[in-house]
Amino acid sequence: METIKVQTARREELVDITALIQEVILRSGVQEGVAHLWSFHTTCGITVNEGADPDVARDIAWKLGDLIPREETAYRHAEGNSDSHVKTSLVNPGATLLINSGELALGTWQSVFLAEFDGPRVRKVGVQIAKAG
Amino acid sequence: METIKVQTARREELVDITALIQEVILRSGVQEGVAHLWSFHTTCGITVNEGADPDVARDIAWKLGDLIPREETAYRHAEGNSDSHVKTSLVNPGATLLINSGELALGTWQSVFLAEFDGPRVRKVGVQIAKAG
Amino acid sequence: METIKVQTARREELVDITALIQEVILRSGVQEGVAHLWSFHTTCGITVNEGADPDVARDIAWKLGDLIPREETAYRHAEGNSDSHVKTSLVNPGATLLINSGELALGTWQSVFLAEFDGPRVRKVGVQIAKAG
Repeated sequence: METIKVQTARREELVDITALIQEVILRSGVQEGVAHLWSFHTTCGITVNEGADPDVARDIAWKLGDLIPREETAYRHAEGNSDSHVKTSLVNPGATLLINSGELALGTWQSVFLAEFDGPRVRKVGVQIAKAG
Repeated sequence: METIKVQTARREELVDITALIQEVILRSGVQEGVAHLWSFHTTCGITVNEGADPDVARDIAWKLGDLIPREETAYRHAEGNSDSHVKTSLVNPGATLLINSGELALGTWQSVFLAEFDGPRVRKVGVQIAKAG
Repeated sequence: METIKVQTARREELVDITALIQEVILRSGVQEGVAHLWSFHTTCGITVNEGADPDVARDIAWKLGDLIPREETAYRHAEGNSDSHVKTSLVNPGATLLINSGELALGTWQSVFLAEFDGPRVRKVGVQIAKAG
Protein backbone atom coordinates (compact mmCIF):
# COMPACT_ATOMS: atom_id res chain seq x y z
CA MET A 1 0.00 0.00 0.00
CA GLU A 2 1.23 3.46 -0.90
CA THR A 3 -0.09 6.63 0.69
CA ILE A 4 -0.38 9.90 -1.18
CA LYS A 5 -0.83 13.29 0.46
CA VAL A 6 -3.14 16.01 -0.82
CA GLN A 7 -3.24 19.58 0.46
CA THR A 8 -6.69 21.07 0.02
CA ALA A 9 -7.32 24.82 -0.16
CA ARG A 10 -10.95 25.38 0.76
CA ARG A 11 -13.64 23.96 3.07
CA GLU A 12 -15.40 22.31 0.14
CA GLU A 13 -13.78 21.49 -3.17
CA LEU A 14 -12.95 18.66 -5.55
CA VAL A 15 -9.19 18.30 -6.09
CA ASP A 16 -8.05 16.39 -9.19
CA ILE A 17 -5.69 13.57 -8.09
CA THR A 18 -5.67 11.58 -11.35
CA ALA A 19 -1.98 12.18 -12.07
CA LEU A 20 -0.96 11.14 -8.53
CA ILE A 21 -2.84 7.85 -8.86
CA GLN A 22 -1.41 7.25 -12.31
CA GLU A 23 2.13 7.65 -10.87
CA VAL A 24 1.48 4.94 -8.26
CA ILE A 25 0.25 2.60 -11.00
CA LEU A 26 3.33 3.26 -13.16
CA ARG A 27 5.63 2.56 -10.18
CA SER A 28 3.81 -0.73 -9.52
CA GLY A 29 4.44 -1.97 -13.07
CA VAL A 30 0.99 -3.60 -13.11
CA GLN A 31 -0.44 -3.79 -16.62
CA GLU A 32 -3.88 -5.26 -15.95
CA GLY A 33 -5.71 -5.05 -12.64
CA VAL A 34 -7.31 -2.55 -10.29
CA ALA A 35 -6.32 0.32 -8.02
CA HIS A 36 -8.14 0.43 -4.70
CA LEU A 37 -8.27 4.00 -3.32
CA TRP A 38 -9.11 4.86 0.28
CA SER A 39 -9.41 8.18 2.08
CA PHE A 40 -8.35 7.76 5.74
CA HIS A 41 -10.76 10.51 6.82
CA THR A 42 -14.41 10.89 7.78
CA THR A 43 -14.96 14.31 6.22
CA CYS A 44 -13.57 13.82 2.72
CA GLY A 45 -14.17 11.18 0.06
CA ILE A 46 -13.16 10.01 -3.40
CA THR A 47 -15.24 10.59 -6.51
CA VAL A 48 -14.80 10.32 -10.27
CA ASN A 49 -16.45 12.84 -12.53
CA GLU A 50 -15.76 15.30 -15.34
CA GLY A 51 -12.40 17.03 -15.15
CA ALA A 52 -12.45 18.96 -18.46
CA ASP A 53 -14.83 21.72 -17.36
CA PRO A 54 -14.05 22.81 -13.76
CA ASP A 55 -17.65 24.03 -13.45
CA VAL A 56 -18.77 20.41 -13.10
CA ALA A 57 -16.71 19.89 -9.92
CA ARG A 58 -17.92 23.25 -8.65
CA ASP A 59 -21.57 22.37 -9.36
CA ILE A 60 -21.22 19.04 -7.52
CA ALA A 61 -19.73 20.73 -4.43
CA TRP A 62 -22.39 23.46 -4.59
CA LYS A 63 -25.33 21.07 -4.95
CA LEU A 64 -24.12 18.86 -2.08
CA GLY A 65 -23.94 21.98 0.10
CA ASP A 66 -27.42 22.98 -1.05
CA LEU A 67 -28.85 19.57 -0.08
CA ILE A 68 -26.82 19.18 3.11
CA PRO A 69 -26.30 22.62 4.67
CA ARG A 70 -23.62 23.26 7.28
CA GLU A 71 -26.12 24.42 9.87
CA GLU A 72 -29.16 22.37 10.87
CA THR A 73 -30.78 22.79 14.27
CA ALA A 74 -31.30 19.00 14.43
CA TYR A 75 -27.57 18.13 14.18
CA ARG A 76 -26.19 16.87 17.53
CA HIS A 77 -22.48 16.39 16.73
CA ALA A 78 -20.86 19.37 18.45
CA GLU A 79 -18.00 20.02 16.03
CA GLY A 80 -20.10 21.85 13.45
CA ASN A 81 -19.16 19.52 10.60
CA SER A 82 -22.03 17.02 10.54
CA ASP A 83 -22.66 18.11 6.94
CA SER A 84 -19.10 17.00 6.03
CA HIS A 85 -19.68 13.56 7.55
CA VAL A 86 -23.01 13.09 5.75
CA LYS A 87 -21.51 14.10 2.39
CA THR A 88 -18.60 11.67 2.92
CA SER A 89 -20.99 8.75 3.45
CA LEU A 90 -22.87 9.71 0.27
CA VAL A 91 -19.82 10.23 -1.96
CA ASN A 92 -17.89 7.34 -0.27
CA PRO A 93 -14.36 7.30 1.13
CA GLY A 94 -13.10 4.78 -1.43
CA ALA A 95 -13.15 3.78 -5.08
CA THR A 96 -11.87 0.82 -7.10
CA LEU A 97 -10.52 1.88 -10.50
CA LEU A 98 -9.65 -0.41 -13.42
CA ILE A 99 -6.12 -0.62 -14.83
CA ASN A 100 -5.70 -1.48 -18.50
CA SER A 101 -2.33 -1.61 -20.39
CA GLY A 102 -0.56 -0.09 -17.37
CA GLU A 103 -2.86 2.93 -17.15
CA LEU A 104 -6.04 3.96 -15.39
CA ALA A 105 -8.95 2.81 -17.56
CA LEU A 106 -11.01 5.99 -17.40
CA GLY A 107 -13.54 7.37 -19.85
CA THR A 108 -12.65 10.39 -22.00
CA TRP A 109 -14.14 12.86 -19.52
CA GLN A 110 -13.35 11.11 -16.24
CA SER A 111 -10.93 12.45 -13.63
CA VAL A 112 -10.35 11.16 -10.10
CA PHE A 113 -11.08 13.69 -7.35
CA LEU A 114 -10.50 13.95 -3.64
CA ALA A 115 -13.78 15.47 -2.47
CA GLU A 116 -12.93 17.78 0.44
CA PHE A 117 -15.85 18.64 2.71
CA ASP A 118 -14.08 20.08 5.78
CA GLY A 119 -10.85 21.70 4.61
CA PRO A 120 -8.45 23.15 4.14
CA ARG A 121 -6.40 20.21 5.42
CA VAL A 122 -3.66 17.77 4.45
CA ARG A 123 -5.39 14.52 3.44
CA LYS A 124 -4.00 11.02 3.05
CA VAL A 125 -5.23 8.54 0.44
CA GLY A 126 -4.15 4.90 0.48
CA VAL A 127 -3.62 3.18 -2.87
CA GLN A 128 -3.47 -0.61 -3.12
CA ILE A 129 -2.72 -2.02 -6.58
CA ALA A 130 -3.89 -5.55 -7.44
CA LYS A 131 -2.79 -7.52 -10.49
CA ALA A 132 -5.52 -9.24 -12.53
CA GLY A 133 -5.73 -13.01 -12.91
CA MET B 1 -11.02 -6.44 -18.95
CA GLU B 2 -14.18 -6.92 -20.95
CA THR B 3 -16.44 -4.07 -22.02
CA ILE B 4 -20.19 -4.42 -22.33
CA LYS B 5 -22.46 -2.00 -24.17
CA VAL B 6 -25.84 -0.85 -22.95
CA GLN B 7 -28.36 1.14 -24.98
CA THR B 8 -30.52 3.27 -22.72
CA ALA B 9 -33.97 4.52 -23.75
CA ARG B 10 -34.75 7.54 -21.59
CA ARG B 11 -32.97 10.51 -19.98
CA GLU B 12 -33.24 8.92 -16.55
CA GLU B 13 -33.74 5.22 -15.91
CA LEU B 14 -32.25 2.17 -14.24
CA VAL B 15 -31.45 -0.58 -16.76
CA ASP B 16 -31.02 -4.13 -15.41
CA ILE B 17 -27.62 -5.48 -16.56
CA THR B 18 -27.41 -8.48 -14.20
CA ALA B 19 -27.53 -11.07 -17.00
CA LEU B 20 -24.79 -9.30 -18.99
CA ILE B 21 -22.46 -9.29 -15.97
CA GLN B 22 -23.28 -12.92 -15.23
CA GLU B 23 -22.25 -13.86 -18.81
CA VAL B 24 -18.83 -12.22 -18.36
CA ILE B 25 -18.32 -14.17 -15.14
CA LEU B 26 -19.28 -17.45 -16.81
CA ARG B 27 -16.86 -16.80 -19.70
CA SER B 28 -14.06 -16.09 -17.18
CA GLY B 29 -14.50 -19.47 -15.50
CA VAL B 30 -13.80 -17.88 -12.11
CA GLN B 31 -15.54 -19.74 -9.27
CA GLU B 32 -14.64 -17.55 -6.30
CA GLY B 33 -13.64 -13.89 -6.52
CA VAL B 34 -15.02 -10.51 -7.41
CA ALA B 35 -16.26 -8.61 -10.46
CA HIS B 36 -15.17 -4.98 -10.64
CA LEU B 37 -17.63 -2.91 -12.70
CA TRP B 38 -16.87 0.53 -14.08
CA SER B 39 -18.95 2.98 -16.10
CA PHE B 40 -16.70 4.99 -18.44
CA HIS B 41 -19.04 7.99 -18.24
CA THR B 42 -19.63 11.00 -16.01
CA THR B 43 -23.42 11.06 -16.31
CA CYS B 44 -24.36 7.46 -15.56
CA GLY B 45 -23.44 5.12 -12.72
CA ILE B 46 -23.82 1.59 -11.41
CA THR B 47 -26.17 0.65 -8.60
CA VAL B 48 -27.59 -2.52 -7.08
CA ASN B 49 -31.14 -2.57 -5.81
CA GLU B 50 -34.43 -4.43 -6.09
CA GLY B 51 -35.21 -5.85 -9.53
CA ALA B 52 -38.41 -7.79 -8.78
CA ASP B 53 -40.74 -4.78 -8.61
CA PRO B 54 -39.87 -2.25 -11.35
CA ASP B 55 -41.48 0.47 -9.22
CA VAL B 56 -38.40 0.44 -6.97
CA ALA B 57 -36.07 1.45 -9.82
CA ARG B 58 -38.64 4.04 -10.91
CA ASP B 59 -38.92 5.46 -7.37
CA ILE B 60 -35.11 5.73 -7.09
CA ALA B 61 -34.85 7.62 -10.40
CA TRP B 62 -37.81 9.83 -9.42
CA LYS B 63 -36.48 10.68 -5.94
CA LEU B 64 -33.01 11.53 -7.28
CA GLY B 65 -34.66 13.89 -9.76
CA ASP B 66 -36.73 15.39 -6.96
CA LEU B 67 -33.62 16.06 -4.83
CA ILE B 68 -31.40 17.13 -7.73
CA PRO B 69 -33.54 18.92 -10.33
CA ARG B 70 -32.37 19.45 -13.88
CA GLU B 71 -32.66 23.23 -13.65
CA GLU B 72 -31.00 25.24 -10.88
CA THR B 73 -30.09 28.88 -11.39
CA ALA B 74 -26.86 28.30 -9.44
CA TYR B 75 -25.49 25.66 -11.85
CA ARG B 76 -22.59 27.01 -13.93
CA HIS B 77 -21.82 24.05 -16.25
CA ALA B 78 -23.26 25.17 -19.58
CA GLU B 79 -24.40 21.81 -20.95
CA GLY B 80 -27.59 21.63 -18.90
CA ASN B 81 -26.71 18.29 -17.32
CA SER B 82 -25.16 19.29 -14.00
CA ASP B 83 -27.88 17.25 -12.29
CA SER B 84 -26.65 14.13 -14.15
CA HIS B 85 -23.08 14.71 -12.94
CA VAL B 86 -24.18 15.21 -9.32
CA LYS B 87 -26.29 12.05 -9.36
CA THR B 88 -23.39 10.05 -10.82
CA SER B 89 -21.09 11.09 -7.97
CA LEU B 90 -23.77 10.08 -5.45
CA VAL B 91 -24.64 6.71 -7.01
CA ASN B 92 -21.00 6.06 -8.05
CA PRO B 93 -19.61 4.99 -11.42
CA GLY B 94 -18.38 1.62 -10.15
CA ALA B 95 -19.22 -1.37 -7.99
CA THR B 96 -17.35 -4.46 -6.79
CA LEU B 97 -19.58 -7.54 -6.70
CA LEU B 98 -18.77 -10.88 -5.05
CA ILE B 99 -18.57 -14.13 -7.05
CA ASN B 100 -19.43 -17.38 -5.30
CA SER B 101 -19.53 -20.84 -6.99
CA GLY B 102 -19.11 -19.21 -10.41
CA GLU B 103 -22.08 -16.87 -10.02
CA LEU B 104 -22.77 -13.36 -8.80
CA ALA B 105 -23.34 -13.56 -5.04
CA LEU B 106 -26.43 -11.36 -4.86
CA GLY B 107 -29.25 -11.31 -2.34
CA THR B 108 -32.68 -12.64 -3.33
CA TRP B 109 -33.96 -9.22 -4.38
CA GLN B 110 -30.77 -7.69 -5.76
CA SER B 111 -30.24 -6.81 -9.42
CA VAL B 112 -27.38 -4.84 -10.98
CA PHE B 113 -28.42 -1.65 -12.77
CA LEU B 114 -26.82 0.87 -15.03
CA ALA B 115 -28.22 4.13 -13.68
CA GLU B 116 -28.71 6.42 -16.67
CA PHE B 117 -28.97 10.13 -15.83
CA ASP B 118 -28.45 11.76 -19.25
CA GLY B 119 -29.78 9.39 -21.90
CA PRO B 120 -30.75 7.99 -24.16
CA ARG B 121 -27.20 6.95 -25.10
CA VAL B 122 -25.02 3.91 -25.74
CA ARG B 123 -23.03 3.31 -22.55
CA LYS B 124 -19.90 1.22 -21.96
CA VAL B 125 -19.21 -0.67 -18.73
CA GLY B 126 -15.84 -2.27 -18.04
CA VAL B 127 -15.81 -5.58 -16.18
CA GLN B 128 -12.63 -6.88 -14.56
CA ILE B 129 -12.85 -10.31 -12.94
CA ALA B 130 -10.45 -11.20 -10.11
CA LYS B 131 -9.93 -14.69 -8.71
CA ALA B 132 -9.92 -15.07 -4.90
CA GLY B 133 -6.87 -16.26 -2.97
CA MET C 1 -16.41 -15.84 1.14
CA GLU C 2 -17.54 -15.59 4.75
CA THR C 3 -20.94 -14.29 5.78
CA ILE C 4 -21.51 -12.36 8.98
CA LYS C 5 -24.90 -11.76 10.57
CA VAL C 6 -25.99 -8.50 12.14
CA GLN C 7 -29.15 -7.98 14.20
CA THR C 8 -30.37 -4.42 13.93
CA ALA C 9 -32.59 -2.78 16.56
CA ARG C 10 -34.35 0.12 14.86
CA ARG C 11 -35.82 1.07 11.49
CA GLU C 12 -32.91 3.39 10.76
CA GLU C 13 -29.53 3.19 12.43
CA LEU C 14 -25.82 2.72 11.79
CA VAL C 15 -24.45 -0.40 13.52
CA ASP C 16 -20.68 -0.58 14.06
CA ILE C 17 -19.38 -3.84 12.52
CA THR C 18 -15.65 -3.00 12.53
CA ALA C 19 -14.73 -5.73 15.04
CA LEU C 20 -16.65 -8.39 13.08
CA ILE C 21 -14.79 -7.51 9.87
CA GLN C 22 -11.47 -7.45 11.69
CA GLU C 23 -12.13 -11.00 12.96
CA VAL C 24 -12.67 -12.28 9.41
CA ILE C 25 -9.38 -10.68 8.34
CA LEU C 26 -7.50 -12.25 11.26
CA ARG C 27 -8.94 -15.70 10.43
CA SER C 28 -7.84 -15.30 6.80
CA GLY C 29 -4.22 -14.66 7.79
CA VAL C 30 -3.90 -12.10 4.99
CA GLN C 31 -1.32 -9.41 5.82
CA GLU C 32 -1.64 -7.12 2.80
CA GLY C 33 -4.70 -6.90 0.57
CA VAL C 34 -8.32 -5.85 0.62
CA ALA C 35 -11.62 -6.89 2.19
CA HIS C 36 -14.63 -6.71 -0.11
CA LEU C 37 -17.85 -6.22 1.87
CA TRP C 38 -21.31 -6.80 0.46
CA SER C 39 -24.78 -6.41 1.97
CA PHE C 40 -27.15 -8.99 0.45
CA HIS C 41 -30.11 -6.63 0.90
CA THR C 42 -31.80 -3.79 -0.94
CA THR C 43 -32.74 -1.72 2.11
CA CYS C 44 -29.45 -1.57 4.02
CA GLY C 45 -25.94 -0.61 2.99
CA ILE C 46 -22.36 -0.34 4.17
CA THR C 47 -20.69 2.93 5.09
CA VAL C 48 -17.52 4.07 6.83
CA ASN C 49 -17.60 7.15 9.03
CA GLU C 50 -16.75 8.41 12.50
CA GLY C 51 -17.27 5.89 15.29
CA ALA C 52 -15.88 7.86 18.25
CA ASP C 53 -18.85 10.20 18.71
CA PRO C 54 -22.15 8.29 18.23
CA ASP C 55 -23.82 11.60 17.34
CA VAL C 56 -22.15 11.43 13.92
CA ALA C 57 -23.90 8.17 13.00
CA ARG C 58 -27.13 9.57 14.41
CA ASP C 59 -26.78 12.79 12.37
CA ILE C 60 -26.13 10.80 9.17
CA ALA C 61 -29.26 8.66 9.70
CA TRP C 62 -31.29 11.76 10.60
CA LYS C 63 -30.15 13.81 7.59
CA LEU C 64 -30.83 10.95 5.16
CA GLY C 65 -34.35 10.70 6.59
CA ASP C 66 -34.74 14.46 6.26
CA LEU C 67 -33.72 14.37 2.58
CA ILE C 68 -35.57 11.15 1.74
CA PRO C 69 -38.74 10.96 3.85
CA ARG C 70 -40.62 7.71 4.35
CA GLU C 71 -43.83 9.08 2.87
CA GLU C 72 -43.97 10.71 -0.56
CA THR C 73 -47.17 10.78 -2.57
CA ALA C 74 -45.13 10.15 -5.74
CA TYR C 75 -43.69 6.81 -4.56
CA ARG C 76 -45.25 3.85 -6.44
CA HIS C 77 -43.62 0.86 -4.70
CA ALA C 78 -46.42 -0.48 -2.51
CA GLU C 79 -44.38 -1.76 0.43
CA GLY C 80 -43.88 1.65 2.05
CA ASN C 81 -40.10 1.43 2.05
CA SER C 82 -39.11 3.26 -1.12
CA ASP C 83 -37.09 5.64 1.07
CA SER C 84 -35.02 2.66 2.31
CA HIS C 85 -34.26 1.59 -1.27
CA VAL C 86 -33.23 5.11 -2.33
CA LYS C 87 -30.93 5.50 0.70
CA THR C 88 -29.32 2.12 -0.03
CA SER C 89 -28.44 3.17 -3.59
CA LEU C 90 -26.92 6.40 -2.26
CA VAL C 91 -24.89 4.84 0.59
CA ASN C 92 -24.11 1.70 -1.47
CA PRO C 93 -24.47 -1.96 -0.53
CA GLY C 94 -20.73 -2.64 -0.65
CA ALA C 95 -17.30 -1.31 0.26
CA THR C 96 -13.72 -2.35 -0.43
CA LEU C 97 -11.45 -1.78 2.58
CA LEU C 98 -7.64 -1.92 2.60
CA ILE C 99 -5.72 -4.42 4.74
CA ASN C 100 -2.28 -3.46 6.00
CA SER C 101 -0.09 -5.60 8.33
CA GLY C 102 -2.99 -8.00 8.89
CA GLU C 103 -5.41 -5.30 10.02
CA LEU C 104 -8.01 -3.01 8.50
CA ALA C 105 -6.21 0.11 7.27
CA LEU C 106 -8.64 2.67 8.66
CA GLY C 107 -8.06 6.28 9.65
CA THR C 108 -8.04 7.23 13.35
CA TRP C 109 -11.75 8.14 13.38
CA GLN C 110 -13.07 5.59 10.88
CA SER C 111 -15.43 2.75 11.80
CA VAL C 112 -17.29 0.39 9.47
CA PHE C 113 -21.08 0.52 9.75
CA LEU C 114 -23.99 -1.47 8.50
CA ALA C 115 -26.46 1.27 7.56
CA GLU C 116 -29.93 -0.08 8.36
CA PHE C 117 -32.79 1.70 6.59
CA ASP C 118 -35.68 -0.75 7.08
CA GLY C 119 -35.11 -2.59 10.36
CA PRO C 120 -35.14 -4.09 12.77
CA ARG C 121 -33.98 -7.20 10.88
CA VAL C 122 -31.24 -9.80 10.77
CA ARG C 123 -28.84 -8.75 8.00
CA LYS C 124 -26.17 -10.74 6.19
CA VAL C 125 -22.90 -9.23 4.96
CA GLY C 126 -20.54 -11.17 2.69
CA VAL C 127 -16.80 -10.65 3.20
CA GLN C 128 -14.31 -11.69 0.53
CA ILE C 129 -10.63 -11.25 1.43
CA ALA C 130 -8.08 -10.80 -1.37
CA LYS C 131 -4.31 -10.98 -0.94
CA ALA C 132 -2.22 -8.23 -2.56
CA GLY C 133 0.28 -8.95 -5.33
